[in-house]
Amino acid sequence: MSYKNYPMVSRVVFGRGSFSQLADILAPKRLGINAPFIFLIDDVFEKNVALPSPIPTGYSDKIIFISANEEPKTSQVDALVEDIILTSKELPSGIIGIGGGTVMDMAKAVAIMLTNKGEAKDYQGWDLVKNPAIYHVGIPTISGTGAEVSRTTVLTGPEKKLGINSDFTPFDQVILDPELTKDVPKDQWFYTGMDCFIHCVESLQGTYLNAFSQTYGEKAYDLCCELFLDNTLAPEVMQDKLMMASWHGGMSIAYSQVGVAHAMSYGLGYVLGTKHGIGNCIVFDHLEEFYPEGVKIFKAMKAKHGISLPQGICADLTEEQFDAMINVSLSLVPLWENALGKNWDKIITRSKLRNLYAKM
Amino acid sequence: MSYKNYPMVSRVVFGRGSFSQLADILAPKRLGINAPFIFLIDDVFEKNVALPSPIPTGYSDKIIFISANEEPKTSQVDALVEDIILTSKELPSGIIGIGGGTVMDMAKAVAIMLTNKGEAKDYQGWDLVKNPAIYHVGIPTISGTGAEVSRTTVLTGPEKKLGINSDFTPFDQVILDPELTKDVPKDQWFYTGMDCFIHCVESLQGTYLNAFSQTYGEKAYDLCCELFLDNTLAPEVMQDKLMMASWHGGMSIAYSQVGVAHAMSYGLGYVLGTKHGIGNCIVFDHLEEFYPEGVKIFKAMKAKHGISLPQGICADLTEEQFDAMINVSLSLVPLWENALGKNWDKIITRSKLRNLYAKM
Repeated sequence: MSYKNYPMVSRVVFGRGSFSQLADILAPKRLGINAPFIFLIDDVFEKNVALPSPIPTGYSDKIIFISANEEPKTSQVDALVEDIILTSKELPSGIIGIGGGTVMDMAKAVAIMLTNKGEAKDYQGWDLVKNPAIYHVGIPTISGTGAEVSRTTVLTGPEKKLGINSDFTPFDQVILDPELTKDVPKDQWFYTGMDCFIHCVESLQGTYLNAFSQTYGEKAYDLCCELFLDNTLAPEVMQDKLMMASWHGGMSIAYSQVGVAHAMSYGLGYVLGTKHGIGNCIVFDHLEEFYPEGVKIFKAMKAKHGISLPQGICADLTEEQFDAMINVSLSLVPLWENALGKNWDKIITRSKLRNLYAKM
Repeated sequence: MSYKNYPMVSRVVFGRGSFSQLADILAPKRLGINAPFIFLIDDVFEKNVALPSPIPTGYSDKIIFISANEEPKTSQVDALVEDIILTSKELPSGIIGIGGGTVMDMAKAVAIMLTNKGEAKDYQGWDLVKNPAIYHVGIPTISGTGAEVSRTTVLTGPEKKLGINSDFTPFDQVILDPELTKDVPKDQWFYTGMDCFIHCVESLQGTYLNAFSQTYGEKAYDLCCELFLDNTLAPEVMQDKLMMASWHGGMSIAYSQVGVAHAMSYGLGYVLGTKHGIGNCIVFDHLEEFYPEGVKIFKAMKAKHGISLPQGICADLTEEQFDAMINVSLSLVPLWENALGKNWDKIITRSKLRNLYAKM
């Protein structure tokens, strides 16, 4: 067998207030006055919340605010890339993503598509990217997705919801400043934190597990239990630890794979546009059969924080919509294989999947 | 305050048998037929133990066996670099270190010194390296040192025992194949494993601690306790987990610092040539005052595995030798500051240090 040769994030800074080091980090990476830095920033920082220090722009650098109300789309990536090429004299010096999973995935995808021909949808899959991306920096402002360490960028395309998985996807630089997460609304904090928890359950219980993934996954799992069940920590400590849980949880799936909840959540996202975090929660809530212990703990966490999930989101689906949902989900072979083994397709039939979706 | 921008290992493979992927990993990195790969290999693999698959040499590639009986020296690095330059038509395509901490540190240092003028001793310290190292690969064959992830390469020079700490030091590629550690003799297994345990104690109890280091350190600490106290795991599982403990322990000190045991062990190493792993154990055994809980657990681990440490190694030292030992140790300011805070020099005086050494 052959083992993955995993490309790591090249550099990482961790610390409260480290966001203010961004200018110093970018300065030596500027390729010239006509090669701008492009800052993709969650639009919550345009409207509601101030970033703790100014974005270090100069020359022809550009700030583009991104709405994270919807999951990132391949068409959105293509439009951004076209806009950047049309309005910049030279290829950018770098792309800096400041936001949650959506914005970080956009930043990774834009950095790739600036140096690779065609459309983003052509690269959804594994190892289809030909040329190195331009320098790209990830700065998470909400913790849990693991997008800051992963070699994928999950996008909804015309035909599928699937990541651009490549050696060129991981960030060249990550800045982990837990202070940036202090104003995240409670429900989003919960859903995104649960993304991490679910990563760990799926990784630790998967057939792809190895000691590398296991040790990262166990640590992130333990941190999630401490954070979402005990809840006796100071807010700053919570922010610090959840940011690290996201990092370790991301590393755990990086070297193994996610499972049933993610495979089904991608189906929801594709057909209904359900956001990834809440989608995972909606699905996971019904997966006792596959993850009995994990679902029990999840329900306890949900109760503790008074979270009520949407019900009946699949109640009015047409048969065509069910079919599309099931098709997207079943296409994610590595996820099913990790969750249920080589004979996964004997266990998870279309009708079984339809029944599960119908309950949600 | 400014936080470290830590350079990570660029790529990592994990898995039993992954050593056999070395040829495939190196092939695209060959710069030309006159630019050899240089394999620095622990000489235990020349004499006693076979590697599980052949070293993939071709063209003018070279295998150099390295004795790990002594700690690596700057003079040894300089001699190796001179030899490589004299016998190669072009700069090597890469340096591959296969061994324990000594060999991995040699590989990192040689890769740096091939592209930086002068002698290795000129670069002992922090951020003195000017030019990027050539491509270098680390393949640990014994677990615990953390040398596979660190940005240092600890060398004994004419004046000091100190690392070449630089952004160019970390490996471009690491292969973590736990199978390579299966023939490590028991005492060495213990001493090197304890290097990891002591890293964690020093990091977790240090004033430099942050959530990044803490989460890595806690995981490695827990793994060490599981491995060295419970001892109910299958040998393969032990090998897998100890390799990961070393990795996480290394990451923990990477983003914080070691403490009293390392500061004192460097003094022993400089004057007596004591190897790092056993040196740490000898010192740590006497550090109840600084690390009461850690030393208690260490003694339990030692008893469980029937390890008896050398006694009285400082019994016959001259005053000059004591002075040299104390000088080397006290020169490691960041280690003392991490262990004891800003006013460390009020707490650890020369006479206190002498009394501690005299007990060893």
